Amino acid sequence: MNLQVSRYPYPALESIWGEENQLQLWLRIELAVCLARVENGEIPDEAYQRILKRASFGSVGEVRGIEEKTQHDLVAFLQAVETRLCEDFRFFHLGLTSQDIKDTGFSLQLKKCGEILQGNLLGLIRVLRRRARQHKYTWMIGRTHGIHAEPISFGLVLLRYQKAFQRHLRRLREATAEVSVGKFSGPVGTYNLVSPQTATRACALLGLKPAHRCSQIIPRDLYARFFQTLALIATGVEEVALEVRHLQRSEVGEVFEPFTEGQVGSSAMPHKRNPVFTERLCGLARIVRADAGPALENIPSWHERDISHSSTERVIGPQSTVLLGYMLQTLTWVMDGLEVNPRRMAENIELTCGAIFSQPLLLALVGHGMPRSEASRLVQRLAFQAIQQKIPLRQLLEREPQTAALPPAEVERIFCFDNLRERVDSIFAPSGEL
Amino acid sequence: MNLQVSRYPYPALESIWGEENQLQLWLRIELAVCLARVENGEIPDEAYQRILKRASFGSVGEVRGIEEKTQHDLVAFLQAVETRLCEDFRFFHLGLTSQDIKDTGFSLQLKKCGEILQGNLLGLIRVLRRRARQHKYTWMIGRTHGIHAEPISFGLVLLRYQKAFQRHLRRLREATAEVSVGKFSGPVGTYNLVSPQTATRACALLGLKPAHRCSQIIPRDLYARFFQTLALIATGVEEVALEVRHLQRSEVGEVFEPFTEGQVGSSAMPHKRNPVFTERLCGLARIVRADAGPALENIPSWHERDISHSSTERVIGPQSTVLLGYMLQTLTWVMDGLEVNPRRMAENIELTCGAIFSQPLLLALVGHGMPRSEASRLVQRLAFQAIQQKIPLRQLLEREPQTAALPPAEVERIFCFDNLRERVDSIFAPSGEL
Amino acid sequence: MNLQVSRYPYPALESIWGEENQLQLWLRIELAVCLARVENGEIPDEAYQRILKRASFGSVGEVRGIEEKTQHDLVAFLQAVETRLCEDFRFFHLGLTSQDIKDTGFSLQLKKCGEILQGNLLGLIRVLRRRARQHKYTWMIGRTHGIHAEPISFGLVLLRYQKAFQRHLRRLREATAEVSVGKFSGPVGTYNLVSPQTATRACALLGLKPAHRCSQIIPRDLYARFFQTLALIATGVEEVALEVRHLQRSEVGEVFEPFTEGQVGSSAMPHKRNPVFTERLCGLARIVRADAGPALENIPSWHERDISHSSTERVIGPQSTVLLGYMLQTLTWVMDGLEVNPRRMAENIELTCGAIFSQPLLLALVGHGMPRSEASRLVQRLAFQAIQQKIPLRQLLEREPQTAALPPAEVERIFCFDNLRERVDSIFAPSGEL
Amino acid sequence: MNLQVSRYPYPALESIWGEENQLQLWLRIELAVCLARVENGEIPDEAYQRILKRASFGSVGEVRGIEEKTQHDLVAFLQAVETRLCEDFRFFHLGLTSQDIKDTGFSLQLKKCGEILQGNLLGLIRVLRRRARQHKYTWMIGRTHGIHAEPISFGLVLLRYQKAFQRHLRRLREATAEVSVGKFSGPVGTYNLVSPQTATRACALLGLKPAHRCSQIIPRDLYARFFQTLALIATGVEEVALEVRHLQRSEVGEVFEPFTEGQVGSSAMPHKRNPVFTERLCGLARIVRADAGPALENIPSWHERDISHSSTERVIGPQSTVLLGYMLQTLTWVMDGLEVNPRRMAENIELTCGAIFSQPLLLALVGHGMPRSEASRLVQRLAFQAIQQKIPLRQLLEREPQTAALPPAEVERIFCFDNLRERVDSIFAPSGEL
Repeated sequence: MNLQVSRYPYPALESIWGEENQLQLWLRIELAVCLARVENGEIPDEAYQRILKRASFGSVGEVRGIEEKTQHDLVAFLQAVETRLCEDFRFFHLGLTSQDIKDTGFSLQLKKCGEILQGNLLGLIRVLRRRARQHKYTWMIGRTHGIHAEPISFGLVLLRYQKAFQRHLRRLREATAEVSVGKFSGPVGTYNLVSPQTATRACALLGLKPAHRCSQIIPRDLYARFFQTLALIATGVEEVALEVRHLQRSEVGEVFEPFTEGQVGSSAMPHKRNPVFTERLCGLARIVRADAGPALENIPSWHERDISHSSTERVIGPQSTVLLGYMLQTLTWVMDGLEVNPRRMAENIELTCGAIFSQPLLLALVGHGMPRSEASRLVQRLAFQAIQQKIPLRQLLEREPQTAALPPAEVERIFCFDNLRERVDSIFAPSGEL
Repeated sequence: MNLQVSRYPYPALESIWGEENQLQLWLRIELAVCLARVENGEIPDEAYQRILKRASFGSVGEVRGIEEKTQHDLVAFLQAVETRLCEDFRFFHLGLTSQDIKDTGFSLQLKKCGEILQGNLLGLIRVLRRRARQHKYTWMIGRTHGIHAEPISFGLVLLRYQKAFQRHLRRLREATAEVSVGKFSGPVGTYNLVSPQTATRACALLGLKPAHRCSQIIPRDLYARFFQTLALIATGVEEVALEVRHLQRSEVGEVFEPFTEGQVGSSAMPHKRNPVFTERLCGLARIVRADAGPALENIPSWHERDISHSSTERVIGPQSTVLLGYMLQTLTWVMDGLEVNPRRMAENIELTCGAIFSQPLLLALVGHGMPRSEASRLVQRLAFQAIQQKIPLRQLLEREPQTAALPPAEVERIFCFDNLRERVDSIFAPSGEL
Repeated sequence: MNLQVSRYPYPALESIWGEENQLQLWLRIELAVCLARVENGEIPDEAYQRILKRASFGSVGEVRGIEEKTQHDLVAFLQAVETRLCEDFRFFHLGLTSQDIKDTGFSLQLKKCGEILQGNLLGLIRVLRRRARQHKYTWMIGRTHGIHAEPISFGLVLLRYQKAFQRHLRRLREATAEVSVGKFSGPVGTYNLVSPQTATRACALLGLKPAHRCSQIIPRDLYARFFQTLALIATGVEEVALEVRHLQRSEVGEVFEPFTEGQVGSSAMPHKRNPVFTERLCGLARIVRADAGPALENIPSWHERDISHSSTERVIGPQSTVLLGYMLQTLTWVMDGLEVNPRRMAENIELTCGAIFSQPLLLALVGHGMPRSEASRLVQRLAFQAIQQKIPLRQLLEREPQTAALPPAEVERIFCFDNLRERVDSIFAPSGEL
Repeated sequence: MNLQVSRYPYPALESIWGEENQLQLWLRIELAVCLARVENGEIPDEAYQRILKRASFGSVGEVRGIEEKTQHDLVAFLQAVETRLCEDFRFFHLGLTSQDIKDTGFSLQLKKCGEILQGNLLGLIRVLRRRARQHKYTWMIGRTHGIHAEPISFGLVLLRYQKAFQRHLRRLREATAEVSVGKFSGPVGTYNLVSPQTATRACALLGLKPAHRCSQIIPRDLYARFFQTLALIATGVEEVALEVRHLQRSEVGEVFEPFTEGQVGSSAMPHKRNPVFTERLCGLARIVRADAGPALENIPSWHERDISHSSTERVIGPQSTVLLGYMLQTLTWVMDGLEVNPRRMAENIELTCGAIFSQPLLLALVGHGMPRSEASRLVQRLAFQAIQQKIPLRQLLEREPQTAALPPAEVERIFCFDNLRERVDSIFAPSGEL
């Protein structure tokens, strides 16, 4: 029983980690080596044909039964196959060590996960692009430190996230390429019973590059890089989720997660519409982030390998990939169906009674000759007054004789953000791409 | 050059980790062992008196100079002392191994830090208690998921934090007691040249308990527990800091960090009053939390010890303690001077037009015979309407014929929170203590 | 499908986290509140008797079915119960908020896990004590930095670990007590519909203490402390596992993990007997250690709570407890059946040709008047020569004229470790207890 | 006072983080923006020439003095410059926000660190290559699980590490390129007072790419990727350091860290030659690894930014870069001067009395018709006997009638590793490159 996987499901990713698939991958890998050996004239083609026809591990249950005795999963798999291949078994797993199969299998699993997750990222990027364009001119207040700063558009916010996920996609592609390696160089990496040529060919048959110059195992820094990348992307999901949570606060009320028909926000308080999906994403990000730690600790192995990484990977392999897949799907769904409240955004821009225009005001005063620090003190004082007493800053300004030098037209220009549209256009323009 | 310590200073804690103090501690420890040996009749009292008078390592610079050659700090210290003690040096460091001195010194450093940090916690608790009482009846809206829930008082929030820090204080006391151990059992913990009696006595002279049944080193789980506790407390600081940041948001505006005269919020936007201190606390919490990881990794040592923990501890020892001290002092200052805006709190309670009273309304309807799920759907619909259309929920209620069963007096009672005062009293009452 | 749990199973712990058990706990908690209300005269006893007889959530599948629509697990549970209780349902979950039930349920789960894990620790301590006594006088070389230091006994090593786990047991007891709290104070912790008396009584009925002065949720520092403790204990397991791995190295060969009949060490190399269980424990420790990070990050919640902790806890709750349970059981099995090779231990003591007696030799020379640094240089030179040229140090000593002052009897004493037995006795003596 | 930096020094990296350099970078960045504005015709060239001549912040002390009042470091810097520029100051920092300068400065610091660290990696790779070639045919036993497996050469081990650091170098180049971005788009990233053209030009003048489509700050995933990469490389250092520690164990004795003249291994045990440098590297790796956590947590910022990342970066910026630089330098020194003991390596190959040839023996038996599982059992039994009773496996083999089918020449071939030289050649061949 596994609460987490059933709670945050992603069947296509989960099945990659199922025992059935793992054993199938092992069989596929063994057969690839057999075929490579045939091509290199090391085993007779007829034997390979017979093996191809008859090779099977029976069932997961059968292999498990044997493993209880051998305490070694790969050996159990081999014994199950042996009973089917009989004499031809001598050409099977020939000159290989368990880890040749297991690590190559792990690589194939991660590669497949990486490909699915890349698809998820693409889907998310598409949704973000569509919504960014849709809200290109949906004005809202930009906030720093949680304090109103200057107006932006909601489209800009989404565009920023779109770009972040484009970076994440590039990184995941690189990390997936890094783990797309196989290894058939035997117990200590010296190719004592499999030639580098056979190994290279078998890898090619599996769509992998060969890991030369390694020990018994594929170097764990390749895998660690992959899990670091998942951790980074999960944190990227958290970044967007956190924004949604903030914008959905009662006092802000600018966006809302989709709320499904019949959904209940709170068992006690019927009025509540809580951003539970994005809160969940923030929580799950902690897990995927934490999983990168063990992946790093797996790197320093004793001499030509120890097996401490194995138990770690059995946990973080499925956990990080399935959870990240679920997170990406969920975020895509949230952003696709996100309810946006432009009216509330417009209201919130007014909340500080014009104090948000303090920077252009300051610059105008400096431009008209007031020393910067003096101007800064004046504007700070007026802005605080506007916020606290809810008096429009522009009105307060008129009462200050030192600001008389400002021409009315310039004051007019300061207190609007007409030119923002044009700047938004230029940021959205393809040439704005980093 | 060390940016972080000068940025987030705490001189009393920093000096504990200074080299001068470290060497003084080593000397104090060596002398304690000498005295214990005198008391056990192992070395002549006259020699001890001479040692007491003349024992000195000269200066930090002198020891450093020797260390450059020996590559061993404790040996350098001993050579510096040897030149002063001459023949009596044979009674000094007698039968001890470096780690006896270094670990006992590290314990004394952590013990002292623990005591200072306990003082910080006490100071913070006092401030929280005072402010909690002051705002016992300062009503504000309670929020869950960032969404308005039901009224509480700001005093209750502070009381909750006060209690959390009382737990933290208890934990730090326990963790400090755990690290208050010394060790004089020689290279592999077998007391081959120092008797358990001498070791125990020397520990007592230093205010420590002896670590029997250990290897060359004091078991690192004792220290790890200490750093875990610092990580927990730092996260407790973050918890309060996060609350202040949320309450200071432009849209909330209920509390404000102290703003010192002349302080500038933003170089560009003079109107800004940013919660920079509490943001800083949230950032620093990440560091102290991360430091607990290496402290754990230090536990599994090779056989009777390896020295990999040493470089780790040179970093996390000063870092975690000084940063946490700075954090506690800063939070205490913030909470002591926190500006509270009860008017804004009162306004915010009204923000949802009464939807926050959905729970008592729901219960009243159920109490008057409406099935729970039907009542829940009705109240949810009305509450959402109240929030979105800014129509008082109470007014919407009157339009619904199914709610006619509710007597007016009960409706009156639902839409106020008069009884909260009494409940606050009982929560504040000493017997409410967990 | 969940590879990790089936690979590293612990059914008694897994079932605590099963949905069946979770729903049963929720029912038990709701009934406890009903009973407390009866005792406080808030609901009629007859209703309670009817509820007690009929209250049921049906099946896990039924609740799951409802949850798909409501997107809220506790509400789904309540709706399932409502169909059985009909009108009496108005007394059920009366005045409670979801989190009252869920957090109290989580506490009960962790409390039960804590109790089972305490039992595991006790079992491990017993095995360590037995084996420590058995090998009290099994001499071996003590090693620091991986380099031979001075003789110890294997019993001392085991005694040290026994003591470490006694500390861990005490810490787990404290951490379990910390999480043994329940909470029935409603949506924002103000007891607006449940009295503190009812809450306290309901907690007592469940064997818990009440968490007063909190928000909607039980403070997460209580749970974080629990997970920190699991992380600490898992690292304690790693410490012992690492020792076994080191001692089983081909070049050391002093101890061996139990090797079950039919077990296969390597699919390629039949001669191998690998310490796979202790390697696995080292790997799993990384996971349990990493889980403490998210538990800490769960502490800072928005205002009166956000729900980001929930998804995190669904993962780390079962994961850390089940894995630690498996680890403790496995380590107990390993240590119980550990094969010890005293012959090899005795051989290894001789490996450095007496260089390991350099400390008593040094002290003897100093005692006979040679300046410490001179003696140190001489002994270092001879010891290195003994190791490199495999010439007994004692023999080399005779060739050095400056050492002539050493009486033969003293030399005899230096190169044996007769007095170790006595010292071992005193360390094993009950009064040696810290 | 900062123990860690003085203990693990790297002056060239430390000076990057010094306040003097930071202020100089800020000045350089401000001047680059001025020049870009001149080129875009936004400010007069004469003013720029005057600014260029007179712009100065005075001294670190002066800026610090102002900051004590403003509580804002960048504002303090500006005020110091203002006193020198007088009226021309209005062209300085024109339309910029603090973070434009601070983030761009942080990027320049990380870029410079990245370049220095790349140089360190290159140096380490060169040393590893040289030593790998030198020990291409220095035979040693390959070990998996700490148990002897099959022969390899020490050159292969070094070649493997060389390749790992080539991967690390590529990753660091990519990560350095990622952080080589500047940002001049104002308070919320909308270029309201600086045009994209000016921003792009100013970045180019600084050797950076512009970060378009961002908020007030440069997206923290760029920096997090950099720190993740440092963590990965530090763990790569640990991997090699761990190998050295293992090979230097008393029982293994195959390699030794350089031991400087006059160095003291232990204050108590003069015979000890401890691998203290590589132990230190393992400890420091824990710190650099832990620092990646806070770097990730810095990513999710509130809206257009909060400043919680700043305090975190002040710590991890210098800490991770300086420590990693020190680690790379130290490892380079260790590997350059590593003492290798080929005689001991040859002796250790013999330690298992031929059991290490169990795989070729097994395959030969299978090749001659023995069923694999039967052969496996036989070879396992004989190999264990050889190891435990120290009887050559080859001799035991002769006593077994079932093995009579093996021709003597084949037996001869099994028990040597003549063909390893050829395979080593092919692995070393340039075409063996992944």
